[in-house]
Amino acid sequence: MKPMGTIPADFAGAPLVIAGRSAEQWVDVAGDTPLFVYDVAAVARRVARFRAAFAGVDLHYAIKANPFPPLLAAMAPLIDGFDVASAGELARVTGLKRGQAISFAGPGKRHDEITAAIQAGITINLESESEAARAIAIGDRLGIVPRLAVRVNPDIELRGSGMRMGGRASPFGIDADRAAAVAVEVIEEGAEWRGFHIFAGSQALDADAIIETQAETLALAARLSEQVGVVPPLVNLGGGFGIPYFPGETPLDIERIGAALAERCAALPAALGATRFAIELGRWLVGEAGVYLTRVVDRKHSRGETFIVTDGGMNHQLAATGNLGTVVRRNYPVAVATAGPDAPTEIVSVVGPLCTPLDRLADRVELPRAEPGDLVAVFMAGAYGLSASPAGFLGHPAPAEILAGAPDVTNVIFTSPQA
Amino acid sequence: MKPMGTIPADFAGAPLVIAGRSAEQWVDVAGDTPLFVYDVAAVARRVARFRAAFAGVDLHYAIKANPFPPLLAAMAPLIDGFDVASAGELARVTGLKRGQAISFAGPGKRHDEITAAIQAGITINLESESEAARAIAIGDRLGIVPRLAVRVNPDIELRGSGMRMGGRASPFGIDADRAAAVAVEVIEEGAEWRGFHIFAGSQALDADAIIETQAETLALAARLSEQVGVVPPLVNLGGGFGIPYFPGETPLDIERIGAALAERCAALPAALGATRFAIELGRWLVGEAGVYLTRVVDRKHSRGETFIVTDGGMNHQLAATGNLGTVVRRNYPVAVATAGPDAPTEIVSVVGPLCTPLDRLADRVELPRAEPGDLVAVFMAGAYGLSASPAGFLGHPAPAEILAGAPDVTNVIFTSPQA
Repeated sequence: MKPMGTIPADFAGAPLVIAGRSAEQWVDVAGDTPLFVYDVAAVARRVARFRAAFAGVDLHYAIKANPFPPLLAAMAPLIDGFDVASAGELARVTGLKRGQAISFAGPGKRHDEITAAIQAGITINLESESEAARAIAIGDRLGIVPRLAVRVNPDIELRGSGMRMGGRASPFGIDADRAAAVAVEVIEEGAEWRGFHIFAGSQALDADAIIETQAETLALAARLSEQVGVVPPLVNLGGGFGIPYFPGETPLDIERIGAALAERCAALPAALGATRFAIELGRWLVGEAGVYLTRVVDRKHSRGETFIVTDGGMNHQLAATGNLGTVVRRNYPVAVATAGPDAPTEIVSVVGPLCTPLDRLADRVELPRAEPGDLVAVFMAGAYGLSASPAGFLGHPAPAEILAGAPDVTNVIFTSPQA
Repeated sequence: MKPMGTIPADFAGAPLVIAGRSAEQWVDVAGDTPLFVYDVAAVARRVARFRAAFAGVDLHYAIKANPFPPLLAAMAPLIDGFDVASAGELARVTGLKRGQAISFAGPGKRHDEITAAIQAGITINLESESEAARAIAIGDRLGIVPRLAVRVNPDIELRGSGMRMGGRASPFGIDADRAAAVAVEVIEEGAEWRGFHIFAGSQALDADAIIETQAETLALAARLSEQVGVVPPLVNLGGGFGIPYFPGETPLDIERIGAALAERCAALPAALGATRFAIELGRWLVGEAGVYLTRVVDRKHSRGETFIVTDGGMNHQLAATGNLGTVVRRNYPVAVATAGPDAPTEIVSVVGPLCTPLDRLADRVELPRAEPGDLVAVFMAGAYGLSASPAGFLGHPAPAEILAGAPDVTNVIFTSPQA
């Protein structure tokens, strides 16, 4: 038997209830399995918790974590800004926030993407010196003053983060020793300089590591601002707030991080005197709010092991099968959504319908006995789930996505697998 | 510097030529970057090589490797059968081959999938005893005699294969000690028994390992057939033929495998006297025939390293970034498609446009110097490429796919990312 991660408290009941409805009721709404259900109230509670812990700090949502349109619409009034990573993502948030509240980060922005961003009046986080020159040139040609921030590749590493994005050679941002010069150039060329974007890593669960990184980030921002000689309107401190996917991991103490940040913000140098700060989060806001539901199609025994075969798998939830950015496969939390609290348990592996050994949702975990027709829930499915999965792989139908707790819960959108 | 895999001989020239056209000419056909080009002549040469090496053995194509419809249409007359893994894949080959030439493998076949398969008259490779019972019951209800083969989970392990699928507890197939009993039940229930499907692994480059596995597979098929007491019409020996992706890997000597198989087939026991044999291949037929082309958008320096940033990456070619079934990331073969043979080289990393460190197509490789506007080719893109990638991730446009060398080379199909 192998352990699995802890089921989020919102969904710890048996049988499973999501936003007041049973798993089968959500299947009825969707019309079929598999499906994703995102609990908008769980997202709103995350936002409220952030607000309480980080008074005066802007909250940005990085839509790459989950770009489901009804979710974006529901989040728009709750947050201060969206961060997008492509022209396609920009199109999804257009109309939900004014341009000033949207920023665009990502290496390799194409000419048409920079053009769309400038026309929409959003902030471009510059990833390289040549991108700065291109954005200024395109703004000139369009006759629009571009809004430009400098993304910094910091001399800072976020300890213990799932993905380190600082402290090394990087495709992201401008090395710290060149960042001030690029900001000066942006200002001298007549663009609207929006400040700095400093992102040191993501998916960290160690509050001390984030506190330390935020302190270093503030110090770096102060140093760079002094070099520029202009107070930056906004410093995006990045995110890095992780969620506990795996056995032994525990939730992040964001209140402690907020208290430490408030202390530092009360004693800022003049170079950051009038600066607003933003924290940009994706996974932490939406990851735990999503549940992937899939129907048991078969149960079989092979050489002493029991397999529960479901109608959904790595084609919709690639990360849960250990195939996205993980080296050693570990078990996400899963449950038999239709089983009561006293159901007898057994040791099983849960596999999807794809004809590859990679398609394993849970490896030798203890679960209530499941029969064909039961529903299996895979938790932590709200971020980097469907949009980060190869939905067309092996030609299975697209899953439904549902925003639960929204005014119109019949708002079901089927995503299209590849034509 | 790190090594990369060897560029397939068909594409080893500089600048790159695919099916008689330059990379820029293919971009013109597609209208934009990124794009996939599949060289149908390269696939046809693979088929011819198989035919020469395996006279009298049927060749099946597992479309999961690449389900691009024009490719399927071009391959249909060249091969003996298609293997599909879902009702969606079945729909793609319907009309291209008669039902008898199509088989359907995969765990967790849904009721509607089994129904569609029986109605289409294709062979269902049974993955479990309960699936056998369901297929028989559905056939009864439909009043159609179902065509059923027994997929065996063999007591055989394909040494050195990239994915082992035998010799262990498995969601695939019926354990060897139960397989004959299920075949007997299928026959007694009045279904049309099509034989056995025995798949021990995939992506092997060691001819001796495959020869040994095929010998064990034949022996297992003979033993099972004796137990059934009926000669199976067909035994699908599986595939397992790998292609060399990485540094130090060499192509598989299929001629030696074919000679060894012919020798064994000349001395078969009576239990397999009138049996046809099939080999089911995916990757080996199409993998090397595909090239992914992406445009350089930026080049940047960070802390002493140089990054070439392209407009395509892990969203289209997940496996090349090391995020699909690989533990240690190694470099696929890549090239600057627009560079001549004498271009000066440099050490660079090639990264895609996604705002994640996972999006790296090549890590510190030696390439001709590339500037924005140049094209980068990622080879080995014909199998488990676009269809196995999260095309909607971060909202970039869908790439074009082109079948090169087909009668109508303007046959461009844009795949749809998630709506």
